[in-house]
Amino acid sequence: MFKLHSLVTAFALMGAMSAANAWETLPTQAPEPANNPSTPEKIALGQMLYHDPRLSSTGTVSCASCHNTMLGGEDNRPNSMGVNGQTGGRSSPTVWNSAFNKVQFWDGRAASLEDQAAGPVTNAIEMGMKSWDDVVARLKDIEGYQVAFKHAFPGENPISKDHATKAIAAYERTLITPNSPYDKFVGGDKSALSAEQIRGMDKVAELGCIGCHSGAAFNGAGMFQKFPMTPDGYLEAKYHFSKDKGVAEVSKKSEDEHFWKVPTLRNVAITAPYLHNGSVQTLDEAVQIMAKVQLGKELAKNDVADIVAFLSALTGEFPKQKMPTLPETTGKTVN
Amino acid sequence: MFKLHSLVTAFALMGAMSAANAWETLPTQAPEPANNPSTPEKIALGQMLYHDPRLSSTGTVSCASCHNTMLGGEDNRPNSMGVNGQTGGRSSPTVWNSAFNKVQFWDGRAASLEDQAAGPVTNAIEMGMKSWDDVVARLKDIEGYQVAFKHAFPGENPISKDHATKAIAAYERTLITPNSPYDKFVGGDKSALSAEQIRGMDKVAELGCIGCHSGAAFNGAGMFQKFPMTPDGYLEAKYHFSKDKGVAEVSKKSEDEHFWKVPTLRNVAITAPYLHNGSVQTLDEAVQIMAKVQLGKELAKNDVADIVAFLSALTGEFPKQKMPTLPETTGKTVN
Repeated sequence: MFKLHSLVTAFALMGAMSAANAWETLPTQAPEPANNPSTPEKIALGQMLYHDPRLSSTGTVSCASCHNTMLGGEDNRPNSMGVNGQTGGRSSPTVWNSAFNKVQFWDGRAASLEDQAAGPVTNAIEMGMKSWDDVVARLKDIEGYQVAFKHAFPGENPISKDHATKAIAAYERTLITPNSPYDKFVGGDKSALSAEQIRGMDKVAELGCIGCHSGAAFNGAGMFQKFPMTPDGYLEAKYHFSKDKGVAEVSKKSEDEHFWKVPTLRNVAITAPYLHNGSVQTLDEAVQIMAKVQLGKELAKNDVADIVAFLSALTGEFPKQKMPTLPETTGKTVN
Repeated sequence: MFKLHSLVTAFALMGAMSAANAWETLPTQAPEPANNPSTPEKIALGQMLYHDPRLSSTGTVSCASCHNTMLGGEDNRPNSMGVNGQTGGRSSPTVWNSAFNKVQFWDGRAASLEDQAAGPVTNAIEMGMKSWDDVVARLKDIEGYQVAFKHAFPGENPISKDHATKAIAAYERTLITPNSPYDKFVGGDKSALSAEQIRGMDKVAELGCIGCHSGAAFNGAGMFQKFPMTPDGYLEAKYHFSKDKGVAEVSKKSEDEHFWKVPTLRNVAITAPYLHNGSVQTLDEAVQIMAKVQLGKELAKNDVADIVAFLSALTGEFPKQKMPTLPETTGKTVN
């Protein structure tokens, strides 16, 4: 993994970026891996699977339960709730614009949307299926899925884990929110941001926020970052940021402790609560905390207000979606 | 309550019906109460509220969780699952065409969709909110709902329990599935049903099924019916039908024991499992059980097949819906 081990590196990177083109608009098309080009049939199937609670052991939890496409792409809870009321220790990242993440999950343990989609389904506290074989068996029992998989994946053995996760990923690549006030401003419409938002935009650059939150999706170039850089006793006692060791929970290496994927700032104003454990409820507070523990700065009240105003300008346009019709299970229950 | 206390009454009613017009097509418009005429603004708000998990204590259960509008209007589970993985003893009735029910809930304890909508939200094992005051307070915190309620209910105090349940009911009145093969057949297209389905249609009339399952929605004229009429030791041991006392659980009167609302047969082929406790997984078996304990008949295999074929012709056309965009909660979590 490529990691930023110091603030100095972060600032150097930021310097390099702003020299080139620090302010990028969000592409309206997501990159697709060579082995999973999107098709309308895959996207339609993926939308069905994404919203289908029968992909969970109890038949009550779908991908959309924690990454709600009717909301900001998450669940407005500190920690997500999976089957049988179980909760984990992390906050759902938004699915909107996740196609622009270089890695997936807070600890970046999945390299692609396809890899990510496979995880929660068989996680005991998330969707709780015993195995993907069980998922595939359940899908094969549903006549409408036999048809939909065949359309999306003509050829041998249409219903498989590989195809299900590819379809879900293809659907997720359509979940893009372009045309935020920020994008309009960068695209040339200088009236799209208020004076306060423009001040916030300058401060975000000056302070160094975009050293990590760089690029069109404000989610960095794929490197991991330590959080908190400088732990603060008071904040630690209140928010327990360091309880979760981040990347190290997966790698089991001490040098990876408290390293995290850089999350997108796109739509951040509507995806409270904040940080990996969802412990911070307001954007004002999240901004102050990040400035303090990451950049060593105490922000004045008006700085916070300007930055929050700018961050609110990152809320994009959410595409109108048709509600999928899920094919019925006949003669069987999920439970 | 108007109840049928004997098979004889049922048959008499059926006789009267078929003399008039036993076979009715499903109206494409639901009746509306005088105090809640539908408007596009109410329907739009109702669709949002119906799909919003923030109407539950944990922020994870919406009306759509158990009455899934992407599926057959229910959850494909024997018993529904509410907040924190809790389950009750009854199976979710479908929301599709519920506007044509004379009473709501399996025990008919709500006289209208408006009344029904108020119940699950504050039921401890369903949506788990402590009170409607808490629900209203939560909605008032969400700016987008302030706007949507004002559009739907201009005037004083737009956000209230009364308005929320009215909006949900107005939305539910749009959930109608017309144009089933049966409707086409009754409407004059004699090729809409197969020979097997027509035989099943005749048998449903002959046997007396439509004595209770009468009218356009095959859900009766609003009377309650005893189930099982003639308890069967073997079936009781297997399915525990009589454990739940139905209407008597609410009225506490012994004469109401084991009386139930007559559920619609519309879309019955796609709303497994069956009966009040969701104990029966296949329609074949449900048909045999109903014939035996309600009508005292042992059906031959081909009779069952014909009737199931007919019942499958009651699956209608599901209107395409737009997915609602739910307004965000800012600076707060639901939990």
